[in-house]
Amino acid sequence: MPVYNPPVKDLSFVLHETLNVHESDVPGYDELDRDFTSAILEEAGKIARDVMAPLNAVGDQEGCTLDNGVVRTPKGFKEAFDTQREGGWTGLDCDPEYGGQGMPYVLATAVGETFSAANMAFNMYAGLTHGAYSAIHAHGTDEQKATFLPKMVTCEWTGTMNLTEPHCGTDLGLMRTKAEPQDDGSYKISGQKIFISAGDHDMSDNVIHLVLAKIPGGPEGVKGISLFIVPKFLVNEDGSVGARNGVSVGSIEEKMGIHGNSTCVMNYDEATGYLLGTEHKGMRAMFTMMNEARLGVGLQGYAQAEVAYQNAVEYAKDRLQGRAVTGVENPDGPADPLIVHPDIRRNLMDQKSFVEGARAFALWGATLIDAHHRAGDADANGLISLMTPVIKGFLTDKGFDMTIQAQQVYGGHGYIEEWGMSQFARDARIAMIYEGANGVQALDLVGRKLAQDGGKHVMAFFDLVKSFIKENEGNEALKADFLDPLKAASKDLQAAGMFFMQNGMKNPNAALSGSTDFMHLFGHVCLGLMWARMAKAAQAALDAGTGDAAFYETKIATGRYYMQRQLPATAMHLARINSGADTVMALDAEAF
Amino acid sequence: MPVYNPPVKDLSFVLHETLNVHESDVPGYDELDRDFTSAILEEAGKIARDVMAPLNAVGDQEGCTLDNGVVRTPKGFKEAFDTQREGGWTGLDCDPEYGGQGMPYVLATAVGETFSAANMAFNMYAGLTHGAYSAIHAHGTDEQKATFLPKMVTCEWTGTMNLTEPHCGTDLGLMRTKAEPQDDGSYKISGQKIFISAGDHDMSDNVIHLVLAKIPGGPEGVKGISLFIVPKFLVNEDGSVGARNGVSVGSIEEKMGIHGNSTCVMNYDEATGYLLGTEHKGMRAMFTMMNEARLGVGLQGYAQAEVAYQNAVEYAKDRLQGRAVTGVENPDGPADPLIVHPDIRRNLMDQKSFVEGARAFALWGATLIDAHHRAGDADANGLISLMTPVIKGFLTDKGFDMTIQAQQVYGGHGYIEEWGMSQFARDARIAMIYEGANGVQALDLVGRKLAQDGGKHVMAFFDLVKSFIKENEGNEALKADFLDPLKAASKDLQAAGMFFMQNGMKNPNAALSGSTDFMHLFGHVCLGLMWARMAKAAQAALDAGTGDAAFYETKIATGRYYMQRQLPATAMHLARINSGADTVMALDAEAF
Repeated sequence: MPVYNPPVKDLSFVLHETLNVHESDVPGYDELDRDFTSAILEEAGKIARDVMAPLNAVGDQEGCTLDNGVVRTPKGFKEAFDTQREGGWTGLDCDPEYGGQGMPYVLATAVGETFSAANMAFNMYAGLTHGAYSAIHAHGTDEQKATFLPKMVTCEWTGTMNLTEPHCGTDLGLMRTKAEPQDDGSYKISGQKIFISAGDHDMSDNVIHLVLAKIPGGPEGVKGISLFIVPKFLVNEDGSVGARNGVSVGSIEEKMGIHGNSTCVMNYDEATGYLLGTEHKGMRAMFTMMNEARLGVGLQGYAQAEVAYQNAVEYAKDRLQGRAVTGVENPDGPADPLIVHPDIRRNLMDQKSFVEGARAFALWGATLIDAHHRAGDADANGLISLMTPVIKGFLTDKGFDMTIQAQQVYGGHGYIEEWGMSQFARDARIAMIYEGANGVQALDLVGRKLAQDGGKHVMAFFDLVKSFIKENEGNEALKADFLDPLKAASKDLQAAGMFFMQNGMKNPNAALSGSTDFMHLFGHVCLGLMWARMAKAAQAALDAGTGDAAFYETKIATGRYYMQRQLPATAMHLARINSGADTVMALDAEAF
Repeated sequence: MPVYNPPVKDLSFVLHETLNVHESDVPGYDELDRDFTSAILEEAGKIARDVMAPLNAVGDQEGCTLDNGVVRTPKGFKEAFDTQREGGWTGLDCDPEYGGQGMPYVLATAVGETFSAANMAFNMYAGLTHGAYSAIHAHGTDEQKATFLPKMVTCEWTGTMNLTEPHCGTDLGLMRTKAEPQDDGSYKISGQKIFISAGDHDMSDNVIHLVLAKIPGGPEGVKGISLFIVPKFLVNEDGSVGARNGVSVGSIEEKMGIHGNSTCVMNYDEATGYLLGTEHKGMRAMFTMMNEARLGVGLQGYAQAEVAYQNAVEYAKDRLQGRAVTGVENPDGPADPLIVHPDIRRNLMDQKSFVEGARAFALWGATLIDAHHRAGDADANGLISLMTPVIKGFLTDKGFDMTIQAQQVYGGHGYIEEWGMSQFARDARIAMIYEGANGVQALDLVGRKLAQDGGKHVMAFFDLVKSFIKENEGNEALKADFLDPLKAASKDLQAAGMFFMQNGMKNPNAALSGSTDFMHLFGHVCLGLMWARMAKAAQAALDAGTGDAAFYETKIATGRYYMQRQLPATAMHLARINSGADTVMALDAEAF
């Protein structure tokens, strides 16, 4: 049975010693003192560990079933969802006007990591609801907000996102779902949507579907897409749940993982829908959900790596196999634990240094969102807009790789479902795909975000790196181990950007052939920056003689590992990028 | 429904234009003219495509079941096994004295790729039998050979390898299974073995288990291990199947993949066993099977990548999504096919360039085995001994990565089991683990094989690379695109070897911390050498104006991709290796 222990101490270190959230002047951050966030994280952690994690394997084994039109979730899910709802966890960062707790997003992100690590499939029910909440909150009328948000904040009603159709995923311009305007101002929605996470289930009184559809006669392609609120049950004037709407579940998909989440084919048959936002501007409204969802997916990537890592460590300490090459370390046992072996160490250090760097990166991203939402900081918005594909793409690609490495520590037992390591990998796999496959993230990064606002945001990122290096260049403890490798990696990133600038205009393929490599290169530099910041904080604490010295020493040693062993990847990515499109595009399609 | 088309043309190119098997003076190779091997590969390919591949998804969905002590294989497996047996495919390279066809191992390897790609789980029944055949052939008495081999060549009786126990996998010294000597010269075997592939099933009249066990009173550790033949049914004097032996199936493991293969817990309860080879020298005999199995597993790794690649290409050509950045390419359709997009190309080229390089590498390895077995070539034996962990570890790590990349091409559909891409990845995953987890392969490579015979074999490999470069340095078509990158990569490999030599003695951890990186670095250089050889052959054919020019041009373009986009990884691996053990071994176990 896999274990999960919420990394409260490390979350706290990132929040308070690396990002210094309590010193920020972003409204609401003044509440985030260490005692307060620790109390929240401890409570959340208990639910993650004691309520959600024990249901992770149950969800995988039982899956969801469709029985006479009713979707049933695995045993125990409803009770766990009640616990999550009743504790107010689903509305942690929601608007108090609608019953939310009004906490900053960064705290919800920290809590979200523990929930997602404990049970990814389960947490998608609340996660999708949050996305739908945000879209209605940002684009809904006062009446729509009053009708839907209070119930969604509490997850009495859950939400979904309906984008994909059988013949179109990324290319939503091909969409066929139609919305016929009715005399009463509502629309009749007809069409089929697939891959709808949390599409239907037996845990809430209503499901509020946000559905992209085309109003006949509107512009072609994505410019003619509108967004609609389509409740499973219509809502009576008094706010109570009314008649069943014309939406039904066609089937539940058989997936590689996240079996605990009901991924549905949804059929809309003249279902009543209400326009959300403006006609034909549905893509913009959808992106409110989508950008949030992409950050949430990045978090899923490293959260699965975290829980897989924890189990790999346990196994490596317990399993006795072979002797240390430098001499017996466990003379009373028949063999030494796996953890004495250098290649097992190398594997575990890859995981540890990735997860901790990713955590800092994701939480830093969350502070940028707060700065934008709470303080109207346009620069922060530009930066997180640039970073979103990196957080989504890099953290899920690497997060999946790390679950595979964690599984490897178990040898043959890793391949047996009973041990749970296969599930972490199978669940993590989807994060590379949904909310825009990672190739699409890379395209978004290189094809759109880099040049956004005249390249201002990527320049701002480079300035961040440069000024951090400059401010700290007198810090001997950081120089060789952190600042120098960060500077080298950052130069590789700039060189890649330069290659795109010089070649992308005359041959867009030359830039896009390097898009995935660029996303990874960028991710490494971000984690390098995070590690440099964390090492600085840890060193400062050590110098001051405050706190748990062993924790800070471990932090610095782990950062050194990342800088020495992971950052050298930037040169490889740059070499690939610099090779351009010639070999990538050389073959005719028939030659494959 | 996934497709599989045996790559007969490419196998033939490798055999006859790159390795030039028909020109070799290894006994038996004179038979391998192009018409003959093509006929064999075409026939094998038909069975792979028409008989085995259609059962791949069936095996995954049904799995094997244990019913009152009887293991049942998925529907259709027995009939397919009959087709394989009746065609003589199970004994292709077996000794004619025992009913085999006596073909070189290189041809059996080429056939094996197609079988393994078509249905990995199914082919393990014959594969394990072949390994057991080889061990009995090499170490059995004349009587043992006469009793068992003819039935195993035809797979009327199948075979297994029994090494692992619940508490020991890699560290076989901890083994508990006992073999008590009996007065009649036989032994009573008692103990439990786990993860026994093809451990029992309903497709053969008998199962011949090769079981490692300790004879009480023997030396401690691995030096006290002996190997035994333990048939499921005892064999009567007339060779017919007799009484049931004391071996039974405890359970069938629930695995991440290869569901079509019955991975069993085997219980031995005073089962009658016959010593194979010498008392206490069981490890040596086992390695006859093990080395063969490791090459077979390397082949599984790239074979799964091949079939996954084929399907990814089909999907990328069929699925219409988005428009080419350089202008519409499919004006009559609602969108362009995925294959126009640079990042999809990058993904497919990664796969294609890996698989074709891996194929050449595996078949080259098979020629070394033939040279050793058929011509007593000790140098060839040294080289393949060095290469075995690289073939196993590198081809399965990368092969799995490529199945994941192939799955990614499908977007959301890749995660749905129905499309079959998940199965390729889940099946390929085991190849990184069994027959020695890849970390153990890396340890074998760096800790044992590098220094074997005074480092003679690695020097021989470097000489091979150097002389290839030297012989061809006047070839302008090869120089910049192939020879220069190969030289650079090979220098990285030598530098890594030098680092190990200078540091490994005084600090073994410094070498072993870089073992996995070294295995990958070595693998890239091997594939680089293969690509240089293939490019030379293709260029020669183009210059001569013979054959299918488009095929040769594609070959060269694919090779250029590998050299430009994959070989830069060697510098990253070297940088990691050069960082030594400091950061890898920095933490106390408690700090993880």
